Amino acid sequence: MTEGRIPAAILGAGGYIGQHFARLLADHPTFEPLVLGAGERSGGRALEDLWQLTEAIPPDLARVRLSPASPRSLAASGIRVAFSALPSGTAGPIESELARRGISVFTNAADHRMDPRVPLLVPEVNREQLLLARRQPRRGGIVVANANCSTTGLVLALRPVWSRLAPRAVHASTYQALSGAGYPGVPSLTITDNVVPFIREEEEKVARESAKILGTVRGSRVRPDETPFLVHCARVATREGHLEAVTVEATRRPDRAELLRRWSTFDPLSAFALPTAPHPPVELRREVDRPQPLRDRWAGHPTRARGMAAVVGRVRWDPPFLRFYTLSHNAVRGGAGGSVLNAELALALGVLRPDGRRAP
Amino acid sequence: MTEGRIPAAILGAGGYIGQHFARLLADHPTFEPLVLGAGERSGGRALEDLWQLTEAIPPDLARVRLSPASPRSLAASGIRVAFSALPSGTAGPIESELARRGISVFTNAADHRMDPRVPLLVPEVNREQLLLARRQPRRGGIVVANANCSTTGLVLALRPVWSRLAPRAVHASTYQALSGAGYPGVPSLTITDNVVPFIREEEEKVARESAKILGTVRGSRVRPDETPFLVHCARVATREGHLEAVTVEATRRPDRAELLRRWSTFDPLSAFALPTAPHPPVELRREVDRPQPLRDRWAGHPTRARGMAAVVGRVRWDPPFLRFYTLSHNAVRGGAGGSVLNAELALALGVLRPDGRRAP
Amino acid sequence: MTEGRIPAAILGAGGYIGQHFARLLADHPTFEPLVLGAGERSGGRALEDLWQLTEAIPPDLARVRLSPASPRSLAASGIRVAFSALPSGTAGPIESELARRGISVFTNAADHRMDPRVPLLVPEVNREQLLLARRQPRRGGIVVANANCSTTGLVLALRPVWSRLAPRAVHASTYQALSGAGYPGVPSLTITDNVVPFIREEEEKVARESAKILGTVRGSRVRPDETPFLVHCARVATREGHLEAVTVEATRRPDRAELLRRWSTFDPLSAFALPTAPHPPVELRREVDRPQPLRDRWAGHPTRARGMAAVVGRVRWDPPFLRFYTLSHNAVRGGAGGSVLNAELALALGVLRPDGRRAP
Amino acid sequence: MTEGRIPAAILGAGGYIGQHFARLLADHPTFEPLVLGAGERSGGRALEDLWQLTEAIPPDLARVRLSPASPRSLAASGIRVAFSALPSGTAGPIESELARRGISVFTNAADHRMDPRVPLLVPEVNREQLLLARRQPRRGGIVVANANCSTTGLVLALRPVWSRLAPRAVHASTYQALSGAGYPGVPSLTITDNVVPFIREEEEKVARESAKILGTVRGSRVRPDETPFLVHCARVATREGHLEAVTVEATRRPDRAELLRRWSTFDPLSAFALPTAPHPPVELRREVDRPQPLRDRWAGHPTRARGMAAVVGRVRWDPPFLRFYTLSHNAVRGGAGGSVLNAELALALGVLRPDGRRAP
Repeated sequence: MTEGRIPAAILGAGGYIGQHFARLLADHPTFEPLVLGAGERSGGRALEDLWQLTEAIPPDLARVRLSPASPRSLAASGIRVAFSALPSGTAGPIESELARRGISVFTNAADHRMDPRVPLLVPEVNREQLLLARRQPRRGGIVVANANCSTTGLVLALRPVWSRLAPRAVHASTYQALSGAGYPGVPSLTITDNVVPFIREEEEKVARESAKILGTVRGSRVRPDETPFLVHCARVATREGHLEAVTVEATRRPDRAELLRRWSTFDPLSAFALPTAPHPPVELRREVDRPQPLRDRWAGHPTRARGMAAVVGRVRWDPPFLRFYTLSHNAVRGGAGGSVLNAELALALGVLRPDGRRAP
Repeated sequence: MTEGRIPAAILGAGGYIGQHFARLLADHPTFEPLVLGAGERSGGRALEDLWQLTEAIPPDLARVRLSPASPRSLAASGIRVAFSALPSGTAGPIESELARRGISVFTNAADHRMDPRVPLLVPEVNREQLLLARRQPRRGGIVVANANCSTTGLVLALRPVWSRLAPRAVHASTYQALSGAGYPGVPSLTITDNVVPFIREEEEKVARESAKILGTVRGSRVRPDETPFLVHCARVATREGHLEAVTVEATRRPDRAELLRRWSTFDPLSAFALPTAPHPPVELRREVDRPQPLRDRWAGHPTRARGMAAVVGRVRWDPPFLRFYTLSHNAVRGGAGGSVLNAELALALGVLRPDGRRAP
Repeated sequence: MTEGRIPAAILGAGGYIGQHFARLLADHPTFEPLVLGAGERSGGRALEDLWQLTEAIPPDLARVRLSPASPRSLAASGIRVAFSALPSGTAGPIESELARRGISVFTNAADHRMDPRVPLLVPEVNREQLLLARRQPRRGGIVVANANCSTTGLVLALRPVWSRLAPRAVHASTYQALSGAGYPGVPSLTITDNVVPFIREEEEKVARESAKILGTVRGSRVRPDETPFLVHCARVATREGHLEAVTVEATRRPDRAELLRRWSTFDPLSAFALPTAPHPPVELRREVDRPQPLRDRWAGHPTRARGMAAVVGRVRWDPPFLRFYTLSHNAVRGGAGGSVLNAELALALGVLRPDGRRAP
Repeated sequence: MTEGRIPAAILGAGGYIGQHFARLLADHPTFEPLVLGAGERSGGRALEDLWQLTEAIPPDLARVRLSPASPRSLAASGIRVAFSALPSGTAGPIESELARRGISVFTNAADHRMDPRVPLLVPEVNREQLLLARRQPRRGGIVVANANCSTTGLVLALRPVWSRLAPRAVHASTYQALSGAGYPGVPSLTITDNVVPFIREEEEKVARESAKILGTVRGSRVRPDETPFLVHCARVATREGHLEAVTVEATRRPDRAELLRRWSTFDPLSAFALPTAPHPPVELRREVDRPQPLRDRWAGHPTRARGMAAVVGRVRWDPPFLRFYTLSHNAVRGGAGGSVLNAELALALGVLRPDGRRAP
C-alpha cells in the first residue's frame, strides 16, 4: 500500500466499465486499487486474461486475480472506497451493505441513481448535489452515483447554456457506441450494416436522470427540473463514444456569440485540483463536421483526463431553436471516469476525509 | 421496342441511382429503357462494367453501352420520357432542354425541386401537386421531381397523422446510409468505426422540401406549410436505408389507437393500378426494436414495390409529443423508385398520354 | 400434409442454420417441414419471434411454434427425414437415436462427420460416398453429414482440377463470415475494426474432412486422401460468405486453358433433376477482383439454388503453383443447403425410397 | 532550427503516410521537419486542415502550411534529408533530382525499390544492404527505400527463423487494412460487409521485394533470394494493421522450442541507440487468437517505437510446415516509420554524417 493513497476496491472489475476503472485508477494519485472484485464469470482469473480494452493494460494490475470480494471481507481488509461497475440489479443491495460497513461507494450502476438521498453527480454540472448525502446514515460510508452514459454527455453540454436559454423542451437523439452494452454485448450479426433504434430503459433514464441532475437542491432535497426531455436512443456500429443530436427550444434569445462564449469559458472546477477533471470540460469545435466518435472520443486535457471532456459542435441557433451535436466517451466520462471524478470531488469538498473515511 | 411500352432514357445511368433506375425499369410494363445516358466517367462502357449494386444486373441491360445522350439526340430517336439521375448542378439545364424538346423528365436531381412550376411529388402524399405542371410550357414535356431521400421517408410517415396532429413543430434526426452519397462517395477511412454528423445541404433540403410537399395547392400554386422542421442529418455505416428519429409536437390529442389506425389504413393509391406502388405504403411494426436498416430496407409489396414502403415503428405517444422512427430505402423510395412511381402516376392521372406525350 | 411430400423435421430450427433450413424447405417440392424442433432457448416460441435472417421468413412457417421434438415423438408422428442443425456435441446421440427409430438424418453437425459409416457428402464432389451408408444398420434410417462450411467451398473448387493437378500440397487461408459462428456468435466489440485469426477446431476440420471427402471409396470404406492441407482460419467482419485464398502445389502441368475449361464445364449433377442443385456448381469469374462476399455470396442458378454455387476467381497459374480464391455461402452451401442437397441426392440415387423410408 | 537537428523535409506531407511522417518526426531528436511538401491537392493548406489520423496532430506542425517544395528550393534552403511519401510514379524523378542536389532521400515510394543501387532496407533484416548505396553517385545524397507494407511485416517475421528453416517455399495471405490505400482510398460501399481479394501490383511487390531484401550482398551487389513466395493479397475492413497468414515449407527440422527462442531473442539493433527502433522488433504472442489488428497494431517499445514491432502468433510447427500469423502497422512499420528508422540507421552506420550530409 502506497503511503497516503486511499485503499480502494473495484467491483465488477472484469467487465468493460470495470476495466476502465482499473485503467484510470492504476496510477491514480489518491486512490489505490487493492482489490479487484469479480462477477460470476471472472472469479479467480487474472485481469490480463479478461482484458477487452484496446488500451494497454496497467502493468501493476495485469496479474492481479479477481476475487469474490464480499462487503464484509472488504471492510475487514481496510478498504475505504469502492468503485462499482456491478451490473444494475445486483449492485443495489451490495452497495448499501458496503456503505453500512463504512465503505463509501462511487457507482456506475443505475440502482441508486434515483434514490433521493443519493447524489446523482456530474461534478461540473451539479456539485451542490453532494449535499443530498447528508441524509444517508451518519455512521456509514456514502453512496454517490454517476449518471447514465447518454445523460452525462447531454447535461454537460447543456449546463453552460441552460439558464440563459430557459428551455421549453429538449430533444435528443443518440448514436450510441457498442461498448455501451458491455461485453459480449451486441452481437456482430445484429449491428453490422445496421442501426438498432432501441436500447432498453435508456430513453427513460435520460429523461428522469436529467431532471434530477438539473434539478434544484433545497436543503438536502432535490426538486427535479420539469423541462420535458424527448429522447430517442439508437445503437450504431462505433466502438466507443456516444454522439447525440440535440435541439433545445428556448424561451429566451441570447445572441449566438454569447452562447459560444458560455460554452468556451465554462470550467466550474477550475479552482479545484482534481486529477481526472478535464479543462475545459466542454470542448467547442468549429469545423462543419464535428464532433465525431472516431476523432473526438478521447477529448480531454490534461492527459489523465483523456476521454473526460464533452465535445460540442455544429451549433445552429435559429431562435427559438438551438441545435448542436455533443459527444462524450460513454465508458470514461459516462462511466468509470465519472465515478472517479465524483470521488475526487467528494474528497476535495471534504465530504470524505483524506484517509477516505466519511467526514463527521 | 416492345409493343406499347413508352420509349425512355435513363440519364446518369452509371451512377448509384442510375443503376437503381435500370434495375426498376428493365422489365417495367409501361416504360422501356432504350438509352442509358452516360456521365463523364462512364461513356462507352457497358452497364455491367459499372455495376455497383449487390442486386443482380438486369440481363437485358447488362451489355448495353452508356452513351452521351444529348437532348437533341434523345428527341431525334423518339424518346418520350427521361428518368434523370444526373448530378445536381448539371441536371437543371439539361432537364429543361429535354422538356423543351418534348421529353417529359422525372428527376431525382435537386435542381428543379423548389421551382414553383415543378411538382415535388410523393404520390401518396401530395398527388394534387401534379397540377403545378400546368404552369410549365404547354408545348414541351413536363418536369416532375422526386424529393430528397430523407425528406421522402419523413413525409410518407407524417402524412397519415399530419392533419390529425396539427403539428406545432417536427423534430427529426437521421441515420443515413452510405449509398446516399453515391459511388465512390464516403471514404471507408471516414466512416469505419465512426458517425459523421454532417451532410452538406441536407438539413436545409429536408426543411424546405417538406414545407413544399406538405403545402397547400391553390390553383396551380403551392402555399408551403409553415410548421418548423428541426433536422439533424448524420451519416452512419449502413449500406442502404435511411433511418430517422422523429418527434412531432402536436396541438391536438387524438388517442393512440387512432394514430395507429391512421397509419395502418393509409393507402391513398389503392384505387390506382400503379406497378411500382407499395400497398400499404407505410408499414407499421409493433416490435420494440424496429425499423432497422438491415431488416426493413426492402419493405414493400408486391414484389415490384420492394424498397418502396416506409416502415414506422417504436411509436411513443406522450401528448403533446409523438415519437417514432421511420425508415425507407434511400435509393429506391427516396430515389429512382420515387421517380418511377411519379411517372406512373402522371400516366394514370392523364397528365401524360398513353404514348408518353404530354396530354394537351 | 401435402400429397407426395415427405414428412420432415428441422432440428435446432431456431438457430442460424436452422432458419436457413426453414427458408429452403418451406416450399420444397419433395420435403415438407412439419415439425420445427427447438433448442433450449427457443421452445414454445414462434419461428417469427426468433427470425434472424435478413431474407423474408416463409409465410407458412412464420407462426409455427418450435417444440422439443424427441426422436420418439418424431417417429410417432410419422416424420421420415430430419434435417439437423443441432449444436455439435449434443447432435450425435440424438441423431443416432433418430436413425434407430427409422428416421433418416441429414445433418450439419460435426459429430458424425468422421464416422467411417457416415457419408461426408458434397454431391458434386463425392456422391459415391453414399455407399458408406451401407454399413449403417439395415433396419433404421441413415445418417448423412454435410461438411464444414470452409471445407465445402474448398473441395467444390478443387474437385474439377484435382486429378489433373495431382497436388503435392494444398494451402488455404480463410476469410470467414460472422454468421459462421451462429447467433449471438461473435461480439461486435470483438470484430469491429478487427480480424480474429482463430476459429476453434476449424483448421483441423478442414484438413481431416477434405481428406475424407477427396478420399477413395473401396467397397463401403473410404481411404482418405493423403495430400497435406495447410490451413489458416480467420474471422472477418462480413455477414455471410466464406472467402478462401488457395494455393495448390501441383505435380503435373496442364495448361491454363485446360484448367479454366475444367472449371467451366464441371457439372456432375447435370443428369439429375435435384431441385437445390446449382448449375453450374462452380462459377468462374474473370474480373480481377472477384469473388467477393458481398457480391457473390448468393451465386447459384436456378433461383432455388441461390447461395449453392462456389465462385472461383483470380486464377494465377505459375507452375507448379496454382493460386485462386473461392467463395461460398457458409450457411447455405456450407450448411443447410448442403444437407438439403444431400437428401435430394439420396432420393435420386434410391438410397431413400420416394416415401422417405430407407430403401431395403 | 533546433541546435543539432538535421534540417529535413517531408514530401507528400498531406497524405496518409505523409501525416505519419509528420507525427513521427515532429519531436524527433535527430531530424527536424522544416518543410512540409504538398501534393497537388494540398498546397497552401495548413497540416491541421488535412489531418486524417485519429492520433493527435503534433502541435508544432499543426499550422504549418504545405508548400510545393521543389528539389531546387529545398536544396537552397539547406534541407539535408527528405522523407518521401510521394505517390509512386511521380516520386522517382523527384527523388533522383533531390539526390543530385545533395539531399538524401528516405522514401516510402515504390519507384526506386528494385533499383540495384538503392538499398531496400529493413534495418533488423538486412542492414548490410546499405552497402548498395556505394554505387550511387559520390557527390550527391543517397536514396534508400523502405519496403512495401505487406513485405515489411513478412520479412521481419521470417528473418529470425529464415536460415534455420532454409525454406523451400513461403506462402502468405494478407488481410490488409484500409489505410494501406491512403485517403480517400477505398470507398465505403466497396468494403462494408465485404472483402476485396485484389490489390493492384501488391502480390508482385511482396514476391520481388522479399527476394531482394532476403538476398545476399556481394560487394555492392545483391543476389536475390530464390525461394518462391506464393502470395494472396486481400483488403478487409480494418483501419490499420496488416495481418498475414504465413506458411513456410522448410527443408530443415529444428525443434519448436528453438524456433520460439529465435523469435524471442531476435534483436539485431540492440547495440544501436536508434530512437525509433523497437525492442524487441518481433513480439511473440502465446494466446490462441493473436495477433489481431485492433489489439496489436501499436506494438513496439519504447513509446517512440509504437507501431514499429511486428507481432507473431499462433505458431504451428508440423514439419516440414511452419504456420503462423504476423501483424504490423502498415503506415508506421510498413511506411513512414520504416523510412525514419532507415535514416536513423544510415546515421548510426556513418553512411550519413551527423550533419546529414553524405559521408565521403
